[in-house]
Parts: sequence; structure tokens; C-alpha cells
Amino acid sequence: MAMFGPLSTGAAVTVTGKWTPSPGGKQSHELQVESIHVLGANDATTSPIQKKYQSAEYLRTIPHLRPRLPLNALLLRLRSLVTAQVTSYFAKNDFIQCHPPIITSSDCEGAGEVFTVEPAASDASPTPDSGLTGQPKKLSEPFFGSPKYLTVSSQLHLEALAQSVDKVWTLSPTFRAEKSDTARHLSEFYMLEAEVAFVDDLKDVMDVVENMLRSLATELQSSRVGQELLEARARDQGEEGVSVSQQTLAQRWQGLIDGPWPRIKYADAILHLKDATAQGKAKFEFSPEHEDGLQTEHERYLAEHFGKGGPIFVTDYPRSMKPFYMLPSSPAGSDTVACFDLLVPEICELVGGSMREHRLPQLQQSMVDHGLRTAADSSTEASDGSLQWYLDLRRYGSVPHGGFGLGFDRLICYLSGVQNIRDVVAFPRYYKKCDC
Amino acid sequence: MAMFGPLSTGAAVTVTGKWTPSPGGKQSHELQVESIHVLGANDATTSPIQKKYQSAEYLRTIPHLRPRLPLNALLLRLRSLVTAQVTSYFAKNDFIQCHPPIITSSDCEGAGEVFTVEPAASDASPTPDSGLTGQPKKLSEPFFGSPKYLTVSSQLHLEALAQSVDKVWTLSPTFRAEKSDTARHLSEFYMLEAEVAFVDDLKDVMDVVENMLRSLATELQSSRVGQELLEARARDQGEEGVSVSQQTLAQRWQGLIDGPWPRIKYADAILHLKDATAQGKAKFEFSPEHEDGLQTEHERYLAEHFGKGGPIFVTDYPRSMKPFYMLPSSPAGSDTVACFDLLVPEICELVGGSMREHRLPQLQQSMVDHGLRTAADSSTEASDGSLQWYLDLRRYGSVPHGGFGLGFDRLICYLSGVQNIRDVVAFPRYYKKCDC
Repeated sequence: MAMFGPLSTGAAVTVTGKWTPSPGGKQSHELQVESIHVLGANDATTSPIQKKYQSAEYLRTIPHLRPRLPLNALLLRLRSLVTAQVTSYFAKNDFIQCHPPIITSSDCEGAGEVFTVEPAASDASPTPDSGLTGQPKKLSEPFFGSPKYLTVSSQLHLEALAQSVDKVWTLSPTFRAEKSDTARHLSEFYMLEAEVAFVDDLKDVMDVVENMLRSLATELQSSRVGQELLEARARDQGEEGVSVSQQTLAQRWQGLIDGPWPRIKYADAILHLKDATAQGKAKFEFSPEHEDGLQTEHERYLAEHFGKGGPIFVTDYPRSMKPFYMLPSSPAGSDTVACFDLLVPEICELVGGSMREHRLPQLQQSMVDHGLRTAADSSTEASDGSLQWYLDLRRYGSVPHGGFGLGFDRLICYLSGVQNIRDVVAFPRYYKKCDC
Repeated sequence: MAMFGPLSTGAAVTVTGKWTPSPGGKQSHELQVESIHVLGANDATTSPIQKKYQSAEYLRTIPHLRPRLPLNALLLRLRSLVTAQVTSYFAKNDFIQCHPPIITSSDCEGAGEVFTVEPAASDASPTPDSGLTGQPKKLSEPFFGSPKYLTVSSQLHLEALAQSVDKVWTLSPTFRAEKSDTARHLSEFYMLEAEVAFVDDLKDVMDVVENMLRSLATELQSSRVGQELLEARARDQGEEGVSVSQQTLAQRWQGLIDGPWPRIKYADAILHLKDATAQGKAKFEFSPEHEDGLQTEHERYLAEHFGKGGPIFVTDYPRSMKPFYMLPSSPAGSDTVACFDLLVPEICELVGGSMREHRLPQLQQSMVDHGLRTAADSSTEASDGSLQWYLDLRRYGSVPHGGFGLGFDRLICYLSGVQNIRDVVAFPRYYKKCDC
């Protein structure tokens, strides 16, 4: 190849030649090159991408160039395939795809770790007429009249839309200002969320999740992207950042296709974990206790052992562990809520969902119990703050409904066997990282 | 209906009965009701939605309830159909759907009206160890290390990804902190953006836009949503907020299907407008002049008269009117850039696109010309600030490429005949408006 001068790894070229049957056994055809034209040269000595092993951590410092590596390009194609497939699945099943707002007034979960949004200083600082009066510049009032946040979940808005068109879904960016430094969290991530009106059994919501993911895995299994992922797993085995073998990845997909997936109550999951500990089958850092919730190590054990390595639904968690908007489990009087987490090996929580409290007095009481309003608010029908509109949904023609949220980037990790969520997102944002 | 007691407009009910052939001519079947169960009552006297004419402006104050009105529900279904259709179209044509970042370092156009992002005060104020030292709380450094913004366009990031997988697209939220109060602008809106590598003619980029919109309109024309939109237009004719008749709406869709759409250079468009003025065919507030650019009234005239009421591409605008990243028109030496605006009746600019400058020295010079870097930066290869990574794309294997951005909410307005963009977005955000 020396004859072509400026050619180097990373250059962009136009190649013309003859496409002829290959005498060798490695491929069916080969290109007999007649001319090469360099479209864009590449200085291979200074290029940040070198033809040698480069760590995942180093590659995260050059997200604008990283997609040129075969695995990263393949991950872009996987995300695209998954997006197109779920879009098609929901359309065929009469779900309406919505664009809920990104800038919001409320913090869905009450978790608090939100980003605030304000116009840049050049717009925010002067009042409109400060130039005319010659007065010192002063801070103008907020752009939206009061402080606003980047959404942490589209659920509440989707609930409003489900009351209009029955079944809705979205694939939208969501945000958390968490300073966490883990392989499973980002400050900006995509959530696939859906809400279904006129259902009164949690089972129906879990069925939507299970059928959607089964359809997706079936499509992936027979796709060219799927084939290339399996080949990449065979090639990269043992490399940093790659957690699973080709065989394990193929089994993951098959585990999504096989079913039905086990559905186990939280209380029974705790008993199962206690049994496993007592019998010496499992050893945990934190002893499983009903009042302590499931630790990540517990979730991992359940997914890897109870669910035969496929997904497992854990349902009916204690009410105190879950957000205010969840409907109590039936029968009435239980201290659990009609909710589920979907756990998968390695990733652990992939989906969370529940029936929503659709009755006004019960929702108001739950908000009091969760510290989101006072009993006085409740008795006087006074201000419910930024959630007044959410209560309105229960005042005017409320219907039983439920829904779920799926961590889309975690799903890409699970389907590809890539361990770190920072490596499946093209331009990942996390604490102290937002370069390009 | 009085026999059912708590029934009122807006209540949610379960109705059971017999589905029987209808003796009247209005419909083929009717439900002979045997029982009605009220799922969610509605106090029709206090409900914000009343069974009478309610203005579009009033309905914007109750975005959480507005979708229950038939037209607003239909607009949700239209958006979903359009989203699913473009997703399918791009997948079939080997475009990779991407999720470019929402929080960014750079301001794509250099326009400046951006929102800044910071963690909420409770997270931002204390330094991590202030609790331990007992020192007064002080402001910690920015979450991401430096100030960040909500994206105004995904173009620059898509350019990076197109160099990996050739053809990319996204449908993503974008933001402008403009205090504008018009029927065509929002602070948060969806853009459909695409970039195509290895193309060297603007014609190829315009072909993508034209083929995509033609495919969409063809699908819409034969869909149930399309049929219901035409019926709604016939019913609502003359009502506030509805700009077009059933016939005009049907013609709009046909205008997207018919083709090819006229493609006219900016300089010729100005001549055409001058001629029309001289001949008394058109009367403008602003006289069309080459150096003044196209005013909205000019764009509207071109779309409605030159393009026979369908879309029209205006290409090759003067370089001074366009952003730094555009490639000069060919032949070399012209003072225009290889760009286009797609104009449609009423909405005016629906799409903007261009070939991108893919040559490093020329891009650096253009940044100097546009005040985005100094000549000293250029000669010393010193810091190019937050756009260093964008220049890298030209340093390492750059290829000719082009792309476009389409205002998705404006497209929904155009396809539905709804005049105000605030009425086609479920929870619109604009200056002083972000309630739910």
C-alpha cells in the first residue's frame, strides 16, 4: 500500500476497482484496487486514535472520535435498531408516542437531585428597560416566572396524556444531578416510559414490558447487528469492559425470548434470600431483611439464580420504600403497593413500574404521608403546590391506570454485554464530565 | 341518561350492552346499553373543561386537561403517526437513529440565547465536606467543571457520528431562551436533524428532505388519522386557530407528494420578488433587497406563489447571513454558501440545511470571520475553546458531508392546519409559561 503515499489508518478515501471472486478462502469476493483518492488525510502520528489497544477510560476522553472504532460504531447501530424496533412495536399495539416536556415544574419522585434551568447570564441579568433608564443592571425575574428543572421522569405528564388516548409511551432524555461515580448511572440518560389507562391489574402492565422486550430480542437475534455483536463478543473476550462471552450474550437474548418470566412478591424474595443464606448457597455483605429493602447484591442473586439467568419481576414492595403515587396492593389493607421492579443479571434493576393511585382522597393522603403536603392542605383543599394539576387528573374523570419506566441505556448495556453505561452513550454526561 | 345519576360530560365509565345493527342511517351499528359503571366521576360544574366553546388561549392554561378534547387528542395521534413514519423511513434507508446530548458545552449557531444548567441549590451550595468541618457553606464548583447549556441544535454532534456510520438522524428536544411571543416559536421544541457523510452536492441533501416528507405525506393521506384531520377541518372551519379549509389541507399534503419541488437560488428569489413588486403583483412592507435577506412576508410570498402552494427550496444565501460551518457554493470564489431553506405556505421556514465545511484551514478561517476565534488562535493552533473537538473532525479523516434540521412542531402545524405551535405541543414552554 506504500505506493499511495498519504494513506494511513484513519484516512477517508475513495477506492475504485474490480469486485471479483476471491481465490482465497477467507471471503467470497475481493476488491482489486485500481485507484485511491484521499478525501481526508489523517496524521497517524498525532491522531488520538492509535492502532493499538486503548483503554475504555482513555477513549471516554475523546467521545467525538471514539465512534470510529468498530465496537462503538456497532453500539450506535444497536441503539438505532432497538429504537426503531420499539417504535414499531408500540405503533402496532396502538400506543401513542408522545413528547412530554423536558423543562418541568415538579420533581416526580421527590428525590431532589435535579438540575435547574435559567437563561444564560447575558439574557438573565439586565431587565428589559435597564438600557433606557441607565439604572444599574439588576437580576430580572425568572424566565418562566418561577424556578424550573430538567425532568427526572415523564411519568406524571404521561398519566395526563393516557387519560386522553388510553395508551402512551415516550423515549425521552431524563436528568439527575447525582455525583455518583458508577458504571450504571449518568446525569443525562434516556428513559422509555409508558402509561396504560383502563387497566386495573399490575399483571397487565408487566405483560406490556415482557411482550415488548420479547419482541425486541426476537428481532435482534435475527438481525445483522445481532450477528455482528456475537462476533464481536467472540473476538473481544477477556478484554476490559466486556463482561460476557458470546455464549452468555446469546443466552441473555434467549432468556428474554423464553417465558413467562418469574414473578415473585418482595416478601417471598426476602424469604428466598434468607433461605439461600441459611443453606450456604449465598453469602451477602448485607443480611437480607424485610425492612431494609433489596441491596444490589440481593437483586443480582435473584436475577442470576431465581430467574435462571433471565429477567425476574419482583412485586409488591412495602409502601414506605416507594413513591407517593403508587396504588396499594390488593386486597385492601396490605402495607404493600402494586408495583414491580424487573431485575436482570449484572444490570439488576432495568424497569420499574406500578399501578398509579387514581383516587383523589387516597392520593392526597399519600402525599401527606410522604411529606409532599400538609394535612391542612388536605382538609382545606388549599394549594397543592406544583402538583395541583396532577390532582386535577383525579378530580375530573379519573380511571385506573398503570405504567413503567425502563432505563434505555442500561438496556443497551444488557443487550450488548458492555459493562459501563458510559461506553454505550455517544456523549455521556456525568459528574465533572461534559466535554464535547 | 338521567337514570344513571352521577353521569356527566367528562366522567369515565364502563359501558356494557349489545352491539346491534342500527335502524337509523347515521351509523352502521349502535350499542344498546345494559349497564353503566362510573369509574371516575366528573364534577361538570367545577370542571375547567366545559361543554361550550372555549378559546385556544384559555385551553393553554389547562394543558393537563386539554388533550381530552377531540382535536387535541387527534393532534397527539398525528404526532405519533409522524414520529413512527419518519423512524420507519430512516431505518429503511439505512440512517442510524442517534441520541445526541441535551446538555452541551457549545452554542452551535453562536446565537447566544441559551439556557444554562446547574444542580439545584440544595446540591450546589455545600461543598462535600462542609458538614464535617463546620465551616460556613460555600458555593461548590460547577457540577460539570464549567458552565453548561441546553442544546440549541444537535448538528455538531451528529457530524461526529456521521463520520462513524455515514448517515445519521435524530428527533431531539432543543432549546432557545428567546422572549419571543409568536405563533411559530417555543423555548423547548423538537428538531428532526440528519447528517450524511460522503456526499458532495447540496442536491443530495435536499433529496433526503424531499423524499422523506413525500413518503410521510403519502402515508398520512391514506391513514385514519389523516381522514379524521380532514373531517375535523370540515367541522371546525372558521373557528379560531384553524387556518385552512379541508380542501386547502388536502392540497397541502398533495403538494408534498407532487414534485419535484422548485429549487431557486437566493439571488433569483430576490429578483423574482422585485419583479413581482414592480408588476404590482405583490406589496411588501419591506422592499426586497439582496443585502437585507428574506423577510417573513417575502418567504410567504415565495411559498404561496412561486411554489404553486407547495414547498420551495431557496438555496445559496450570501455567506454573511449564515453560520460559520457552511461550505461555500461551487464554483469557488462565490460569496454564497451551499445551503438551503425549505419554505412552505403559512409556516415559512420549515427546514434549513447545508453542506458543511469539511476542510480544516477553511473552517478555521470561517471561525475567525465569524468572530468565533482570533487570527492568533489560527496561526498558533492554540485553544479553539469548546469547539476544538469539532475541528478535530477535520484533522483526522474528514469527509465531505451535509445535513439539515427540520422544525418538528412546525411540521405538525403544517400537516394539521393548526396555526399556533402552542396548540400542537402537549405541554408548551415559552416565556413566562411552564406551569405543569
